[in-house]
Order: sequence, then structure tokens, then C-alpha cells
Amino acid sequence: MSAINIPEKTIERLSEYRRTLRSCSEQGITHIFSHVIAGMHGITAVQVRRDLMLIGFSSDTKKGYDVRVLIEFIDGILDSRDVQHIAIIGMGHLGQAITKYFNSKRHNLSIVASFDVDPEKAGQTIDDIPCYDMDEFERRVEELDINIVVLSSPTDVASELVVPIINAGIKGVLNFTSKPLNFPRGIVVENYDITTLLEKVAYFVKENEE
Amino acid sequence: MSAINIPEKTIERLSEYRRTLRSCSEQGITHIFSHVIAGMHGITAVQVRRDLMLIGFSSDTKKGYDVRVLIEFIDGILDSRDVQHIAIIGMGHLGQAITKYFNSKRHNLSIVASFDVDPEKAGQTIDDIPCYDMDEFERRVEELDINIVVLSSPTDVASELVVPIINAGIKGVLNFTSKPLNFPRGIVVENYDITTLLEKVAYFVKENEE
Repeated sequence: MSAINIPEKTIERLSEYRRTLRSCSEQGITHIFSHVIAGMHGITAVQVRRDLMLIGFSSDTKKGYDVRVLIEFIDGILDSRDVQHIAIIGMGHLGQAITKYFNSKRHNLSIVASFDVDPEKAGQTIDDIPCYDMDEFERRVEELDINIVVLSSPTDVASELVVPIINAGIKGVLNFTSKPLNFPRGIVVENYDITTLLEKVAYFVKENEE
Repeated sequence: MSAINIPEKTIERLSEYRRTLRSCSEQGITHIFSHVIAGMHGITAVQVRRDLMLIGFSSDTKKGYDVRVLIEFIDGILDSRDVQHIAIIGMGHLGQAITKYFNSKRHNLSIVASFDVDPEKAGQTIDDIPCYDMDEFERRVEELDINIVVLSSPTDVASELVVPIINAGIKGVLNFTSKPLNFPRGIVVENYDITTLLEKVAYFVKENEE
């Protein structure tokens, strides 16, 4: 474990700051103030400064933060030394949306394989990513040194994937099915159900109206 | 605003509890203990009881919570009296994944329309949902009484959608593009970038390994 213990929410925001900073950098912006970053993310400048203080970044000058320096600093926090390999399980619309979208970017996270039970897909290359039959899961995970999987399979098969994922030695799971999954300690799991997100938005819309 | 102020995280968990409870109910389970719900969601029973206490539900018996009663109680918290109408902006893979997935369920949230600039899609019916050209956005939103939109468009056009969304009187936005968007007070926005979720999982995997 790292010396500092960074809260999940801060990790999420750092990832978001970095994305914004990269596009600023592409637009030739060299320096940026915390309140500008805050504005772009709809949060307070205090929050931004607190997050950056938490990771030990404190080079705010009269000109604001040096964008490139800050990006590299966040890289040092978020990125692991070597590229982490990701596999998508379930190459339906969601799986394809994720690969298309994600591999269009530079990353030290790389989607290197996908898996599907559909014989129409298994054996094909979809969006430049080889799609394998689920039967090959364990073998391919080892061969391709995959340690993270994204579950975009139908919800009703999600539970059946838990054991293969454990057996294959996967260390992180991003689960988009609507079945929350539990894994043994040592395997990071994030359950994200789109229905939950929509119901959450709908709830706060309702609250605003009442 | 409602009398009690329920934290976002609790709202998310209530939505997840309800989904679990519904499937329990379908399987003929009539009563359930907080620690069972907790187990299914990988959280503590204390957390579950705290959430339910927060919404004023406290009918834990020797047999556990009455599943149907609890579902209806959560309905009363999360659901608005009348069905809320949702539109998807951007019917690429992600947009289609969301409609397919979401409308396969019963909801008092209903996806009633989608919008796309692609002439191949506009005018068509995709997954039983009419797809309109973005030019018709304002008119259709009013006609179909839509108050929530899901943004699954390419990131580079996301900013251009802010003004039309405001003008159309939309009250809630679930933004899946990687451009965080700000809206005037009174419009609920949730920015969910899949990259952030993946980077978060990758970070905690890395931390576990170190």
C-alpha cells in the first residue's frame, strides 16, 4: 500500500482533472488556476486545492499551476510503472462502446482482448481488439498478462463469471451489469449500474421539483 | 425539497437494494435480513440498517424485513408520482446499450425518444424507440414531456448540447461523455466518464500490489 491513503472520490477527481489538463495542454495552455479547474468540473477551488495538497502537489504560482508539471504529477499518483492490460467480457453494444471509446485515447491502461460466447464474435477482431471465446478466458488472461476486466455481459450471466475471474487471477473488476458482485479480498470491484445512475438523477430532479 | 435530506450515496444504495429485493421477490423470497442484503452488496448490515432508518423504514422482525413492503417503501422514496420521460442523445453503441438494457425493465422512468445527427438513424425506430434528428430536439422534448436526458454522444460535441438542453427545459442530465458539463442551478447533472471508473479500479489494483 502507498504511504498516503487517498479517498476514492479524490482518485476520481484526479482522473478528471488530468483529462481536463491534457486537453488544456493540447490547446497550448501552459498555466491554470485552481478556480479555473474547479469551474470546469463544477466544484469549488478549495476542493481542487485540497485534492492537490492531499497528493503533495503545491506549486501554485502567480500564474497558476504549471499544466504539464501537474499532469506528470498526477501520472505519478494514478499510473502504475508498466501498462496494465484490460479485457472486456461481453462485446455487445456496451462492450464495443467501451473499447471504441477507450482505445481511442493514449493510456497506460490498454484493452488487449475481449471475450464473448457468441460464435459470431469469438475469433473475430472487433475495433482492433481480438475477441476470444469465454472458454479461452483463463489461458488468454495469463498469456496476455491481463489483470483488470470490464463486465459488460448480460446481467443474467454475471454470477457465472465470478469463479473464472478469480481462477484467472484477475485483480480488478469494473462491473456494468445490474448484478452487484462480491469478490475475495485482494480483488478490487466497482459495481456500476446505469439504472442506479438514472434513478439517482431522477430522484434529485423530483426533489428539485417538490 | 423533501423533508429529509438523503445523501447521494444512500440514494444509490436504495436503488441497488430495490433491484436486489425485486429479484428476491421474483424468486419467491418474502422476508430478508439486513445482513443478507448487506452480503449481496458487499457492505455491512449496519450500513443497510442505517440507510433504511434514514428513510424511516424500521419494520425489522424476527423474520427480517418484509421484501414487498420494503420495495414499496423504497418506491415511495425514489419514484415520482408520474412516469418521468427520458431521452438519449447519441444513438451509437453506448446509447443503444442503454436503451436496450433499460427498457427491458419495468420502470416509472421511461426512455421515450432518442436523438442523433446521423441521417441513417434519425427518422428510424431503434429498439422500439423513435430516433429524431437533433434539429427536432426542443420540439420533441416539449411534445413528449421529457425532463431527463442521457448524453451518449461523442465527447467533442458534448459542449454544443448544453444550450439546447437548457432551452428545452430539461431538468436532469446523465452525462457519459468525457467532457464534464456544468448547467445552471435547477438542472441536476451527473458526469460519469468510463475512463475515470477504469482509472479508479486500476489505481486500487496498483495500491493492492504495492
